[in-house]
Amino acid sequence: MANYKSIIAYDGTAFKGFQRQKPGIRTVQSVLEDGLRSVGWDEGSLKAAGRTDAGVHAKGQVIAFALSWKHSTGKLTDALNANLPADVSVVNTEAVEADFHPRFSARSREYRYTLIAAPVRDPLRARYSWRIWPEPDIEAMRTAAGLLIGEHDFAAFGSAPIPGGHTLRNVLRADWKREKDELRFKIEANAFLYRMARRLVGALAEIGAGRIDVEEVSDLLDNPSARWEGAVAPAQGLCLEAVRYT
Amino acid sequence: MANYKSIIAYDGTAFKGFQRQKPGIRTVQSVLEDGLRSVGWDEGSLKAAGRTDAGVHAKGQVIAFALSWKHSTGKLTDALNANLPADVSVVNTEAVEADFHPRFSARSREYRYTLIAAPVRDPLRARYSWRIWPEPDIEAMRTAAGLLIGEHDFAAFGSAPIPGGHTLRNVLRADWKREKDELRFKIEANAFLYRMARRLVGALAEIGAGRIDVEEVSDLLDNPSARWEGAVAPAQGLCLEAVRYT
Repeated sequence: MANYKSIIAYDGTAFKGFQRQKPGIRTVQSVLEDGLRSVGWDEGSLKAAGRTDAGVHAKGQVIAFALSWKHSTGKLTDALNANLPADVSVVNTEAVEADFHPRFSARSREYRYTLIAAPVRDPLRARYSWRIWPEPDIEAMRTAAGLLIGEHDFAAFGSAPIPGGHTLRNVLRADWKREKDELRFKIEANAFLYRMARRLVGALAEIGAGRIDVEEVSDLLDNPSARWEGAVAPAQGLCLEAVRYT
Repeated sequence: MANYKSIIAYDGTAFKGFQRQKPGIRTVQSVLEDGLRSVGWDEGSLKAAGRTDAGVHAKGQVIAFALSWKHSTGKLTDALNANLPADVSVVNTEAVEADFHPRFSARSREYRYTLIAAPVRDPLRARYSWRIWPEPDIEAMRTAAGLLIGEHDFAAFGSAPIPGGHTLRNVLRADWKREKDELRFKIEANAFLYRMARRLVGALAEIGAGRIDVEEVSDLLDNPSARWEGAVAPAQGLCLEAVRYT
């Protein structure tokens, strides 16, 4: 028996989120556990870095599991992929120490959010983006993104995963890149509160649309009893890009 | 009554191709005609630049239709989009002369084909690409692409849309661009034979894999009674990018 860490990619569209629920509900975890059982895995539950919401995608989700496997980790990746549906895949697998935990060992998580600034729908990108119009003020959105960097109490933008848990999070990166009509927000933090990334993007989009001022974000960060009551960016624009451990 | 030209985008995944078939078969044309009828259109059939196969996508399909419309072309675009499903949209609409025909007036068509050179599946790109592995020889694929440029008899790679029609086509552009593991083939020609783009990409991929030599493509172009019997690249990697009129 050895311990393995796999990087997982999925298209979240047809999943009711990551976390296993009742039997018959299609979640990423239940599909991965079925795939693992087909190669001889028999733990009760895999470990994962984070629980993405229904409709959220991932390029770099991380899971860990214990398994008796006599072949290479490359062959394990291939065997798992042969037993997984088209909308989820194992990117790579490596052996790890027994004390590795994809959530507790993680140093940071990076999410990407894709906005399309365009007057009409694009059926070829709708699955992975949120379309906004009119043209947003990206400079204001960049200013507001800069305010997020550093340690802040993000209580206004999300709830702690454990009831009563603290809501301080350290944002290491938050920036917008633009290519033609595509605006990509990357945000990396030590950890995220529930729905924090989507609420932050919702607030930044409201700033871009001129509906609220940049100052509203700094006020919400300074006042932990306040709550962001505005737009929550839709799930399909969000992708868990990477989880970092070193 | 005036004549309009619209640029149409669609995700081909859930369509049985462009061309209208029997009632109850979901095609792009039937969905567009339903949308047009909801704004008062009552011709029997719209005109289109080309008939894409089942599963092929488009960013720049072109249709034309006659309609009584009292508002701007921008409002017509919006009204049509409000009456179309999420996987098809009108990009823009303009008024055209009565003799404009999206197929017969076209000077050239441009297609894009996306290959992913990677050892494992990527669920976030599978819908719009064809994955190949091992690493292909892109220089050989570029050499072979260069052979396609100019006027050739492409009978080995496709059949004429009209039985007995000629199979000479003039390729204006054929090149590969690579970005990380993504290889994008752009091919522009005055017109295309049935399945020509997918058969050419199939042949170029075989060259990239080292299974056939570059010379096999020149032999097929020099010998109109020969037939390409190898791989046909799958539909989901192909996208009709643009149809040009001037």
